[in-house]
Amino acid sequence: MRLEVINGGICAVKGVRAYGVREGSKGLALIEGEGKATGAFTTIKTQAAPVIFTKKQLESGRISAIIANSGCANSFTGERGMRNAVKMAELVSSCLGVDEDAVAVASTGAIGLQLDMGVIERQLGEVAEELTSAAKGSTTAAKAIMTTDTFHKESAVRIIETGDTEPVVIGGIAKGSGMISPHMTTATMLSFIYTDADLDGDVLSKSLGEAVDNSFNMTVVDGDMSTNDMVLLVATGKGGKIGEEDFKAGLTFVCQELAKQIARDGEGATKFIEVTVRGAPSDADARAAARAIVRSPLIKSAVFGERADLTCGRIIAAVGSAVLTEDIDLERISISLKGAKAVLAVDNGKFIDLSGMVRDIMKAKEIVIDVDLGTGGEAAATAWGCDLTCDYVKLNAAYH
Amino acid sequence: MRLEVINGGICAVKGVRAYGVREGSKGLALIEGEGKATGAFTTIKTQAAPVIFTKKQLESGRISAIIANSGCANSFTGERGMRNAVKMAELVSSCLGVDEDAVAVASTGAIGLQLDMGVIERQLGEVAEELTSAAKGSTTAAKAIMTTDTFHKESAVRIIETGDTEPVVIGGIAKGSGMISPHMTTATMLSFIYTDADLDGDVLSKSLGEAVDNSFNMTVVDGDMSTNDMVLLVATGKGGKIGEEDFKAGLTFVCQELAKQIARDGEGATKFIEVTVRGAPSDADARAAARAIVRSPLIKSAVFGERADLTCGRIIAAVGSAVLTEDIDLERISISLKGAKAVLAVDNGKFIDLSGMVRDIMKAKEIVIDVDLGTGGEAAATAWGCDLTCDYVKLNAAYH
Repeated sequence: MRLEVINGGICAVKGVRAYGVREGSKGLALIEGEGKATGAFTTIKTQAAPVIFTKKQLESGRISAIIANSGCANSFTGERGMRNAVKMAELVSSCLGVDEDAVAVASTGAIGLQLDMGVIERQLGEVAEELTSAAKGSTTAAKAIMTTDTFHKESAVRIIETGDTEPVVIGGIAKGSGMISPHMTTATMLSFIYTDADLDGDVLSKSLGEAVDNSFNMTVVDGDMSTNDMVLLVATGKGGKIGEEDFKAGLTFVCQELAKQIARDGEGATKFIEVTVRGAPSDADARAAARAIVRSPLIKSAVFGERADLTCGRIIAAVGSAVLTEDIDLERISISLKGAKAVLAVDNGKFIDLSGMVRDIMKAKEIVIDVDLGTGGEAAATAWGCDLTCDYVKLNAAYH
Repeated sequence: MRLEVINGGICAVKGVRAYGVREGSKGLALIEGEGKATGAFTTIKTQAAPVIFTKKQLESGRISAIIANSGCANSFTGERGMRNAVKMAELVSSCLGVDEDAVAVASTGAIGLQLDMGVIERQLGEVAEELTSAAKGSTTAAKAIMTTDTFHKESAVRIIETGDTEPVVIGGIAKGSGMISPHMTTATMLSFIYTDADLDGDVLSKSLGEAVDNSFNMTVVDGDMSTNDMVLLVATGKGGKIGEEDFKAGLTFVCQELAKQIARDGEGATKFIEVTVRGAPSDADARAAARAIVRSPLIKSAVFGERADLTCGRIIAAVGSAVLTEDIDLERISISLKGAKAVLAVDNGKFIDLSGMVRDIMKAKEIVIDVDLGTGGEAAATAWGCDLTCDYVKLNAAYH
């Protein structure tokens, strides 16, 4: 099996048409594509209306279309908010002639404000006319759901199996920059992924759970969770059959590509950080340690300052706070850093003298941190994030 | 029972003498005071040598002296670090003629560097000669353990019970500003508390556990945990007897005073934040929600920007992420803000229109946030923190 990166985002998938429009902060994306569907949702207790509504819509295991707006999260909006989410599905239903029970609804933007249904209805009319299976459909949809994102996010792969089987395609779009615009917008992460694979519904949901755990859930920009986070996966079944493991590999690849694009677009970020923790006694230890490192404001600040020495000391503390095991031996932890230079910075508990090059190592847009816990265990995990900068504070303080 | 705030810090307590010196970043504090002792320590898995050593020293339930140095955390220092911690106790033992098993050792400062034992031995000689029960002893000790602190921290109260009982005194010093100096120093929090109360050892440890839970453990500056955090409580028994509840109240007061001083001194902070979450179904819910609010970089940035509107939206998200209960109803959450003005900002799920005064409310050095979850539960918790500023990032990036 091999993965071939292709263009086209969601529109690379057979049976999918999409389009999006934007006026100022208000965008609307519509995606048409019938098939088996599953989703992963924010675990926040204060879920927004579209999250509650779409979870219910997915109970049937199939959807025909997704409507997503930016500019208003329809969160903390009470009964009227729920009526508006239902109304969005009804509008799509009459517009596309699909069952209103088969429309998923997503929103991102300001919290505590009601949707402007007039704008949504008008924009829906516009996008429905332009729906296309060309790459432009995916790109305009990805752009329509942006809030504070500085670039749109899409990814697609073709999974080519040995033998004569028909290749399967997986394509996705996403939005999220892990931060806030000046009006109570939270760091909402939305992602819509389609595949033409012919799969069982339970394989679909199991695969999505694992892929999300190893991608979006390992991405930390500021650690705050949104009321609107949502990942949807739809299988049109118009392509070939594929083994479960190969499908998972392809889906994980697409989810990681999208997650990394989100980390790269962290608000105010100047550097992308990839952290791998290995030599852990369990996956839970490796994951907790990797996430703690990309989450730590101290480490994020040190990376911004390009200080390799500070970064390592703070990694020790973050790892010690995060791991679950008691079997951590300081004398066995090793840390490698890669930026403009690659160095072994801590060797089995000993800080290597980096004087003279402390500032050079991290002069790069991408910083790779590799931590070997040296416990003898073989579990590993990778997480993605970005540095913490003055611009992050300024943007989020919206002090003007 | 009433609490009377008094001067003198730890030296307000009968049977306690202290002193401290400082040369540049290297400080040393010595406290003499024999009695029953208990401690609370960082739960980090990568504990520094003095933490491991002092936990063992406390197993006897008594200590005679505390030695604490700043400038070097003796953390991540291997066997040599442990030998140096033992050596510090031996030096105090021969200097003061106390049992070397009865000396507690604490360190704060750079990680990964070895102690300069020559400096420690010389400074110890100096402070041992100056030990005093005057207020100056407490103040110089508190100043000696400062790292990035911008002011020293001390507090003392007299507990006056009705009737003829002799009043009990509790006094403490602390250091910590929840951040990092330019050399891998972590946000170490140290606090040494003395009382002259005549108490059982188990009352002492139970009281300290509860007091720490409601004070230091509810203080968040950047959420990073240090390898060296330590709180020690020693009861000289030279004062009166006191009921357990009254003692707890006094101890909690002193711990909260010290914790609030630490929050106020958060690196780069311009505002002190006090958050109370009430109307929760359990203490765990109230505590988790209050801590999540003072920890959120989004909320901390919004407070820095004096944006009441942004603060409230982000509180909803933080509360939703943090609480354990499923019984959260957005329509019942109310939020009050108090700064230069006091307002009800969210009333049973409705955002009050604050236009025209959004920027005025939070123009103050102290911001009080009160969140009523409205679940019908009566649990409440208070947490303390500070805003997130560009200066925090600059200081921690040490980019110069």
